[in-house]
Amino acid sequence: MADSSIHITKAKSSTDIATLIGLIGGFGLVIAAIITGGSPGSFINIPSVLIVIGGTLCVTMICFSLQEMGRTAKVIVKTISYTSRDPSEAAIQVLQIAELARRQGVLSLQGILEQLESEPLLYKGMSMVVDGTPGEEVETILKKDMFSTVQRHQKSANVLKKAAEFAPAMGLIGTLIGLVQMLGNLDDPGSIGPAMAVALLTTFYGAVLANMVFAPMASKLDRNSVEEAMVNNIYVMGAASIGRQENPRRLEMMLNSVLPPAKRVEYFD
Amino acid sequence: MADSSIHITKAKSSTDIATLIGLIGGFGLVIAAIITGGSPGSFINIPSVLIVIGGTLCVTMICFSLQEMGRTAKVIVKTISYTSRDPSEAAIQVLQIAELARRQGVLSLQGILEQLESEPLLYKGMSMVVDGTPGEEVETILKKDMFSTVQRHQKSANVLKKAAEFAPAMGLIGTLIGLVQMLGNLDDPGSIGPAMAVALLTTFYGAVLANMVFAPMASKLDRNSVEEAMVNNIYVMGAASIGRQENPRRLEMMLNSVLPPAKRVEYFD
Amino acid sequence: MADSSIHITKAKSSTDIATLIGLIGGFGLVIAAIITGGSPGSFINIPSVLIVIGGTLCVTMICFSLQEMGRTAKVIVKTISYTSRDPSEAAIQVLQIAELARRQGVLSLQGILEQLESEPLLYKGMSMVVDGTPGEEVETILKKDMFSTVQRHQKSANVLKKAAEFAPAMGLIGTLIGLVQMLGNLDDPGSIGPAMAVALLTTFYGAVLANMVFAPMASKLDRNSVEEAMVNNIYVMGAASIGRQENPRRLEMMLNSVLPPAKRVEYFD
Amino acid sequence: MADSSIHITKAKSSTDIATLIGLIGGFGLVIAAIITGGSPGSFINIPSVLIVIGGTLCVTMICFSLQEMGRTAKVIVKTISYTSRDPSEAAIQVLQIAELARRQGVLSLQGILEQLESEPLLYKGMSMVVDGTPGEEVETILKKDMFSTVQRHQKSANVLKKAAEFAPAMGLIGTLIGLVQMLGNLDDPGSIGPAMAVALLTTFYGAVLANMVFAPMASKLDRNSVEEAMVNNIYVMGAASIGRQENPRRLEMMLNSVLPPAKRVEYFD
Amino acid sequence: MADSSIHITKAKSSTDIATLIGLIGGFGLVIAAIITGGSPGSFINIPSVLIVIGGTLCVTMICFSLQEMGRTAKVIVKTISYTSRDPSEAAIQVLQIAELARRQGVLSLQGILEQLESEPLLYKGMSMVVDGTPGEEVETILKKDMFSTVQRHQKSANVLKKAAEFAPAMGLIGTLIGLVQMLGNLDDPGSIGPAMAVALLTTFYGAVLANMVFAPMASKLDRNSVEEAMVNNIYVMGAASIGRQENPRRLEMMLNSVLPPAKRVEYFD
Repeated sequence: MADSSIHITKAKSSTDIATLIGLIGGFGLVIAAIITGGSPGSFINIPSVLIVIGGTLCVTMICFSLQEMGRTAKVIVKTISYTSRDPSEAAIQVLQIAELARRQGVLSLQGILEQLESEPLLYKGMSMVVDGTPGEEVETILKKDMFSTVQRHQKSANVLKKAAEFAPAMGLIGTLIGLVQMLGNLDDPGSIGPAMAVALLTTFYGAVLANMVFAPMASKLDRNSVEEAMVNNIYVMGAASIGRQENPRRLEMMLNSVLPPAKRVEYFD
Repeated sequence: MADSSIHITKAKSSTDIATLIGLIGGFGLVIAAIITGGSPGSFINIPSVLIVIGGTLCVTMICFSLQEMGRTAKVIVKTISYTSRDPSEAAIQVLQIAELARRQGVLSLQGILEQLESEPLLYKGMSMVVDGTPGEEVETILKKDMFSTVQRHQKSANVLKKAAEFAPAMGLIGTLIGLVQMLGNLDDPGSIGPAMAVALLTTFYGAVLANMVFAPMASKLDRNSVEEAMVNNIYVMGAASIGRQENPRRLEMMLNSVLPPAKRVEYFD
Repeated sequence: MADSSIHITKAKSSTDIATLIGLIGGFGLVIAAIITGGSPGSFINIPSVLIVIGGTLCVTMICFSLQEMGRTAKVIVKTISYTSRDPSEAAIQVLQIAELARRQGVLSLQGILEQLESEPLLYKGMSMVVDGTPGEEVETILKKDMFSTVQRHQKSANVLKKAAEFAPAMGLIGTLIGLVQMLGNLDDPGSIGPAMAVALLTTFYGAVLANMVFAPMASKLDRNSVEEAMVNNIYVMGAASIGRQENPRRLEMMLNSVLPPAKRVEYFD
Repeated sequence: MADSSIHITKAKSSTDIATLIGLIGGFGLVIAAIITGGSPGSFINIPSVLIVIGGTLCVTMICFSLQEMGRTAKVIVKTISYTSRDPSEAAIQVLQIAELARRQGVLSLQGILEQLESEPLLYKGMSMVVDGTPGEEVETILKKDMFSTVQRHQKSANVLKKAAEFAPAMGLIGTLIGLVQMLGNLDDPGSIGPAMAVALLTTFYGAVLANMVFAPMASKLDRNSVEEAMVNNIYVMGAASIGRQENPRRLEMMLNSVLPPAKRVEYFD
Repeated sequence: MADSSIHITKAKSSTDIATLIGLIGGFGLVIAAIITGGSPGSFINIPSVLIVIGGTLCVTMICFSLQEMGRTAKVIVKTISYTSRDPSEAAIQVLQIAELARRQGVLSLQGILEQLESEPLLYKGMSMVVDGTPGEEVETILKKDMFSTVQRHQKSANVLKKAAEFAPAMGLIGTLIGLVQMLGNLDDPGSIGPAMAVALLTTFYGAVLANMVFAPMASKLDRNSVEEAMVNNIYVMGAASIGRQENPRRLEMMLNSVLPPAKRVEYFD
């Protein structure tokens, strides 16, 4: 059969450039302000960097386990290069596959599997369906995958929220250390200014870390997690329905019941 | 039939001038205070404006998608020129239309359609009714429209709330940059004052943006969304009832069950 | 009949002097501290007053509608001269009226109507009963009145809470304006002190407005609203029961079910 | 009968010395720090005391009624000398009385009444039982007492929480008054230090009042209220059960159902 | 029988080193910053230590009872050396024991009891099972133990959260005392710096205690409590099931219903 040449419309996946634009734009503005001020070197102070970044890392680590800290690092990278998918198009994609399976049998899906590799959950589900795994089992296994992804994202968002809480506190602690050192040594009036500048650097680092990295990243992570769960749910419902060899029209009805009103699809007439 | 000349009382729609008065009054007072102080020029500093407005925009963008940011801009404009409508009068208007449809048939509504153009949801519903769309379908389609409007408003209110959180933080970051630059360069005592003034400007911008624009606009948006949903719900119920050719008295009863006690109507004796 | 001479014990209504004592005492202490400091004139600065009071008014207005702002002004005045009533005594009063209506007929209540004028809701209910309005209708109408009073109070409390949020922010904005103006003009060292004093005045006004007026008034409004709703509920239940010509003993039982344990009444043996 | 010589184990009531130790220790440390600093006199300033303590009192009074303020004063005293009782031992005590009543009749409880005087609720309940009041009525009356105690404690905790909110605000207001007065009068540089010291005193008083008195007392009040309600509930259940002449084993079962797992009792084998 | 030589796989228990690393790393960085600054001695001031640590202890003590304070100290030590266990492996361990009991009878468990000593709850449960305690009673007793552990942890977390609230407040109070003393004695300009440095020390101590000890420890305690309750719940379910001599396959099914999706076990084929 030439059906293996069938092309499944992929859900248009747009890389979420807002995160990158925001990060680059925000830091660009801060760096520009520093450079135009004349002496960018005075904004770099290794001990200050260590006490704020290292301290925030240490204090956040007290709150969690090493494993949770490590996973968060990975999740941050994934959030920056996040690929958002339109739930409507994901539903259309699933309905196309369901129609193909209906018309030419489940085994014909073998030919389109490689087109699905960019969507791990859908790929895994369809592979199981092709291997003859019953629909109920496909659903159970994929739901476990999906649920643990959501949980992992929530834990990572909590790590970032705690880091956003502790970064300004570590900045304050660093500034207090600097102030106490400066005040104990006021003999040379000429050193007061620079010493005070260094003391304020940790407050600056803490404010930048918390407000330009940790807090907005946690916020974005929460937002993406909701969006991703919706798309993944569509894939789970689709794979289970195809595995149970249900009528694709019934699948459409079920998908529409979980899609937000503005995103409902009308694939069959 | 001369019925097309029938005039439907419009729900008295009063432009919400409180938002405009508040914005103009608030900024007017701040600007007056700046001008009477003598040197208004010292309150304008382009790098400071860039770091606070640009920075807040960037950091807020990290939390959301480009689409959500764009929609918020539109919603802000719509909030400033918001037209509030009395739910009682909207109910009366709907009952007048229902009575007309009852007495002269649904087709007679054709003649009054253009009077409804200022209310898109009511217009859309009545057009569908005139076209013979069944009441259930009219209700489903209008509810989708209404629900996605509410959701869009909530997302926009969240964008504004985040911006109100980040604007003072960006102001603090700008001030810290200015302070560090000033403290590293204390040789010329005469420059301390002006440098400090510039450093404080970002804190000033952040406070103004958060407290005079973002936070009150988010608050107004939430308030308007509730009010608008109530009026839209009345239009949806009306259009569905007329589409189902129900007795207008039954419609009145149903409308009264969703109107707040003080707003209930008695259209039919 | 001489029954019109019957005297109904009024619920002892004690003017709530705590609000007045608190306001007068608090402002008295602040003014005393200012006067004993020597130069009370330096605490009055019209531009500062304008930016804090006017600014807070403007920003709060952005959040609400003109109508909501106007109603809040009235509610504030009513809160200062609030008359608290003991729910037990209100219940006794209602039971006395019910007993009179039972023994001498509903029409006999005509004679005591004018004794009830100080309680608008009770007066309105009893007037309707005397006019022969059925109990169910009396209950529906009075409940609408009562419910919209509660809603009005909640909206006004929200306006005050927002004002308490924005007043210190406007104070900070005013102080920042003053500081930037002062720092740009450090040539005359003698003017630094007074300029700084003026700059701090807006922070002072904002703190006084928020903590000595808006926040406590919002708190009192919430408290009074709960207390008033309980008394009004007793009047509604009483008027409805008398309108339905129920046995006053049954009314007593019903009233006790809504009164707090310590306030239950035993009017009949 | 010699039964009046029976001795009922009292619930070991330990005075809660944590409150006293905490208050004395905390204030001791603060006073020690002040005295070792050399000039304790500079920490006492009558106008500052008046504006912070008097102001907090006035502003808190705006939020409540005179009656609620008065009750809070009493509740504070009671909290300092709070006697905590072990719910297990209270249950054992009640079971001993129940067993005595079972074996020798309810009238025999006359002889042990005076041993119960330290527990007003238990005493009141047992007196009613001895007087032949039926169990249901005993339960209703005691529950009213218990419920209004809990409510009174909650209201008092709310008063303290509001006071903890307003005390630092009054401290800030006092400091701003002091600063404005000092800044308007910078001619004598020698007076700046002492004037500033006096200005800071109100912030100091506000911080001490809020963090060392009001906030922890409110917290303790909430904690004690929960503990006391549990013990009182045991007394109410016991008195009601004895009044109904139920089997003490049934009472034990019921008491265990409300006791926390670790506190359950096994009085009968 | 040689069955007593059977080896039960222990749940791999990994000491939670994140707490230790975080505490040592955080304090290491702070101490390094202090030492590299030159005069570490200026960061040690006994009166400042007393007022912050002692004051926080006293104020926190006002909120709780001596017993609750004592238990918290123990819980802190246990949290630092916390041993985390994988719920999956705990389930496998329980299923191994259940299979052994199924095949060779409950008495055969005597031989493996000593292997379980590191898990007190499991050890207690199995001992009761070997002694012939019925499954229902085993479940009731172990659940009481487990529930009071959770409650104890929650109370201790609350103590730490209150301490994290009060430590910065005591730091502020200490700094205000220092400032007032310094300002009252400005005659010797050379002493201003050191006096101010000492005054800031209490703020520094308060920030370190709250943000590097109390708040993260409370956070970790909450996290561990959830994890420990899950493992303990598995032990309770296992001991009860073995006591009731249920089929181990049924136990597996029940354990999987409480395990998170990613942690479910498949012990029997």
